[in-house]
Amino acid sequence: MAVKTYIIQIHCPDQKGLIAGTTQLLAAAGANIIDLTQHTAKDIHSFFLRAVFEMDSDNIGSLRDQIALYAEKFQLTWELHDTTHVARLAIFVSKTDHCLYDLLLKQRDGYLNCEFSCIIGNHTDLESVSRAFGIPFYYVDSKQDKALQNERFNEIISETKTEMLVLARYMQILSPDFVNAYKNQIINIHHGFLPAFKGAKPYHQAWYRGVKIIGATAHFATEDLDQGPIICQNIQHVPETADIEQLVQLGKDIEKKTLSQAVKLWLDRRIFVEQNRTFIL
Amino acid sequence: MAVKTYIIQIHCPDQKGLIAGTTQLLAAAGANIIDLTQHTAKDIHSFFLRAVFEMDSDNIGSLRDQIALYAEKFQLTWELHDTTHVARLAIFVSKTDHCLYDLLLKQRDGYLNCEFSCIIGNHTDLESVSRAFGIPFYYVDSKQDKALQNERFNEIISETKTEMLVLARYMQILSPDFVNAYKNQIINIHHGFLPAFKGAKPYHQAWYRGVKIIGATAHFATEDLDQGPIICQNIQHVPETADIEQLVQLGKDIEKKTLSQAVKLWLDRRIFVEQNRTFIL
Amino acid sequence: MAVKTYIIQIHCPDQKGLIAGTTQLLAAAGANIIDLTQHTAKDIHSFFLRAVFEMDSDNIGSLRDQIALYAEKFQLTWELHDTTHVARLAIFVSKTDHCLYDLLLKQRDGYLNCEFSCIIGNHTDLESVSRAFGIPFYYVDSKQDKALQNERFNEIISETKTEMLVLARYMQILSPDFVNAYKNQIINIHHGFLPAFKGAKPYHQAWYRGVKIIGATAHFATEDLDQGPIICQNIQHVPETADIEQLVQLGKDIEKKTLSQAVKLWLDRRIFVEQNRTFIL
Amino acid sequence: MAVKTYIIQIHCPDQKGLIAGTTQLLAAAGANIIDLTQHTAKDIHSFFLRAVFEMDSDNIGSLRDQIALYAEKFQLTWELHDTTHVARLAIFVSKTDHCLYDLLLKQRDGYLNCEFSCIIGNHTDLESVSRAFGIPFYYVDSKQDKALQNERFNEIISETKTEMLVLARYMQILSPDFVNAYKNQIINIHHGFLPAFKGAKPYHQAWYRGVKIIGATAHFATEDLDQGPIICQNIQHVPETADIEQLVQLGKDIEKKTLSQAVKLWLDRRIFVEQNRTFIL
Repeated sequence: MAVKTYIIQIHCPDQKGLIAGTTQLLAAAGANIIDLTQHTAKDIHSFFLRAVFEMDSDNIGSLRDQIALYAEKFQLTWELHDTTHVARLAIFVSKTDHCLYDLLLKQRDGYLNCEFSCIIGNHTDLESVSRAFGIPFYYVDSKQDKALQNERFNEIISETKTEMLVLARYMQILSPDFVNAYKNQIINIHHGFLPAFKGAKPYHQAWYRGVKIIGATAHFATEDLDQGPIICQNIQHVPETADIEQLVQLGKDIEKKTLSQAVKLWLDRRIFVEQNRTFIL
Repeated sequence: MAVKTYIIQIHCPDQKGLIAGTTQLLAAAGANIIDLTQHTAKDIHSFFLRAVFEMDSDNIGSLRDQIALYAEKFQLTWELHDTTHVARLAIFVSKTDHCLYDLLLKQRDGYLNCEFSCIIGNHTDLESVSRAFGIPFYYVDSKQDKALQNERFNEIISETKTEMLVLARYMQILSPDFVNAYKNQIINIHHGFLPAFKGAKPYHQAWYRGVKIIGATAHFATEDLDQGPIICQNIQHVPETADIEQLVQLGKDIEKKTLSQAVKLWLDRRIFVEQNRTFIL
Repeated sequence: MAVKTYIIQIHCPDQKGLIAGTTQLLAAAGANIIDLTQHTAKDIHSFFLRAVFEMDSDNIGSLRDQIALYAEKFQLTWELHDTTHVARLAIFVSKTDHCLYDLLLKQRDGYLNCEFSCIIGNHTDLESVSRAFGIPFYYVDSKQDKALQNERFNEIISETKTEMLVLARYMQILSPDFVNAYKNQIINIHHGFLPAFKGAKPYHQAWYRGVKIIGATAHFATEDLDQGPIICQNIQHVPETADIEQLVQLGKDIEKKTLSQAVKLWLDRRIFVEQNRTFIL
Repeated sequence: MAVKTYIIQIHCPDQKGLIAGTTQLLAAAGANIIDLTQHTAKDIHSFFLRAVFEMDSDNIGSLRDQIALYAEKFQLTWELHDTTHVARLAIFVSKTDHCLYDLLLKQRDGYLNCEFSCIIGNHTDLESVSRAFGIPFYYVDSKQDKALQNERFNEIISETKTEMLVLARYMQILSPDFVNAYKNQIINIHHGFLPAFKGAKPYHQAWYRGVKIIGATAHFATEDLDQGPIICQNIQHVPETADIEQLVQLGKDIEKKTLSQAVKLWLDRRIFVEQNRTFIL
């Protein structure tokens, strides 16, 4: 017998008795719930529950079966995660290194409990950083045909046993079919306070619009550029005297913090997606 | 039969099975849990749970008995609140009106679901505001003996059926025996970012110390001045050119927001106190 | 002889020697500069200068003439303000009172150094607040023809010697010709973080888009709805569990703070407008 | 002839005519002022001025002489900086790397316009980081006698032509005579919101005190531990469920941002120190 810690995420249309039902199911299976959060988004009649529990790993298979039955009855979407599993993430980069370093250092520091399976770049500028951290680097030319690129991405993802993709200021637009194939599996950092300033050069847009606050937004990539579900956002008041270049510099601190925060939320299995928005429990 | 909404707060030394135990107790009594939050503060081995549930009010008495038994077994501290009960709060004031207005307007606007039973002032400056909002005003001279003041406070509290006291920039120190008699029942707003700048003239202290951020702190009053459990805090970056007078002005927005927020948290039964700090669920 | 304090605002295409030139002009006229701020927005080659100075009011006429000559030579846009003049502002309201109260209380408290010449409402709900603060209230029906409304507005503005208009959650769209007639003289508070969430029901838009931060924006009204120059903005992180109604409530604190802040900046003659954005010195 | 950009910092008891006097002095010497900020701290009757100007470097010597005369007359404290000079800073470290990396990356990125002359560690853990960035690393044992340490520090500082010291989470207390010898030349990052939580383990202190916001403070080191002039501060709201370990992690983002920001302010010659506080222009 080995006691392990698991996380369950449940998500469904709102209905009575879900908390009691779920906790009873877990208790009956011998699970000891150590953390439970739940939320009903009444504006869209949706229910979300995240529970952390410990139990004998010999019994997890039978619990999984019981949950499946319960899920069918109440139309639940659910996921069950073994917390001893260390997720493998790929990082996509171009030339800028601030987000990349922040991820690498926070992983090494133990804050991000994951492994980085590889770094994929459309430039080779950051290959030496990859090497310094002992992570395989793959150069994939972004000027070649998208279909060829996607094929190469898929090969690398498969070879490196990658489960999740993180775009750390990767300055390329991924093709719709690639993005759709990895739904809610690609976290992007946008250097603007979405939904304002979508697309290119958001700091330029922000400066000319004269906003007094800039921000960064981590979101899941979808087919529609910068319109996927927002995971987290942070902002910074702008000094009145700041020029565009200073906005770009100021923004970097927000970008790196926000992207690392989003990755942490994903690793902790706190993100639920419903109707193109997230709920973080 | 009338279905009502209740809130239960549970608080005890950490031990296994508390979430399952509590949810089963509620489910067995026919309660429909609509919101549940719980937290284990592992640094002090304490467990906190807040649940909102609906049930037939005819059965609440028997549920209460069951909880009492359960509580004894597991050393729980608990409170059960009927949400149809409208709490009655007294506001203590001196001469400044910003916190008072914020409370009165947010109550009238429905944000603060309570009644203000009375306004007690050691000056009569704000009597007209009381009148405009139809709330009885009591002048209690703060220059008289503390024992006499306390007697008068107790009379007013009793006459006006007051359950909770809010010090809205009341510029007097309440006597230890009064404060102790109303443990965790007096919310004070301190115009400084505690634990820094306790006591008098916190903005002066802040300016001379050269801090770059000022704050306000809502806390439960205790015998030790400005050292009671902190309920909530907010801050504001200080312009470099601000003089002391400007700090005082800037601070007012933070003070009123923070005090109203603390009252809201109390009304929503979200505050737990343990070891001179709060946990807000 | 009476020494008075003046504020000069200068604004022009960037060129060498402007600071020295201006300070020499003032010094030569016997002015004692007590505060000077200047900024060059190099991205648009614009120069802004604000100086506060004291001088004998007998000589201000001749200084004015000299500045006019200097301004012609260097293509300066300029304004010279006597700080002993108390500006008269009209407040436009509908039914919500939080912004109105914040303005009235901050004026009475001395933070906003102005007079409120009148309150104009398209509902009579806030007439009693006007009366309590001793300010004339005018009801102007917003269902009547826009031209008739504008005529009435102009009459009131003229009768009450109003210099500036403040829209304190006035839920009507002013007609283009009215807005154009009062260019940079109408401050509006938008209950959203512009440029996102323009137009109606910004909190609904924000909730459904799933943003993690809400904001409010004070701006000058222009013909294009919610697209005028932004004066100031503030934000608030949104609790994950907040529903739309809670966003609306949370937003009120930001709205009132932001509108009062914008009025203060205008009164202090700190706002410069160039290319549909502001620079605040 | 070579036109260079200079920064002058002036600082003195408040008196009339200082702005006009200074701008005339500069104009007369042929300087073109491109940026000027000034502030009078009326609470302590102090005047501060910072001006950026361009002029022929052949004439800077004679301007320097004129300023010296002017300074004597009006009791000015002043500094004149040639912006083409690249300052050399030493970084002191122990084992934690987040502040170190932030400094190194922001320097390489051009945000911090300086050179790091050396990294001094009381552990060798970060020697490899030094090497990766091509900066000499010196190990100085912190268990040896303070006098010996100071001697070694002075040698290294002298050998490496170091002008400024940055303590990037250096977990040792420097001796009073060393600190006094480098007055306003040592920037320290304290991982707490000073003046609260001075000394060791500030996050532990913060957690047990139950504050709702944590912060970091960059300040000049003085003989009194964590009581020197504050340069800048940043904060972060604390999730209610955060344990001490999480506070430590959350704090790192604030610490590194705040330290880099302080170094940037110093490099831009924006910091003035008066009466144990700073004024940043």
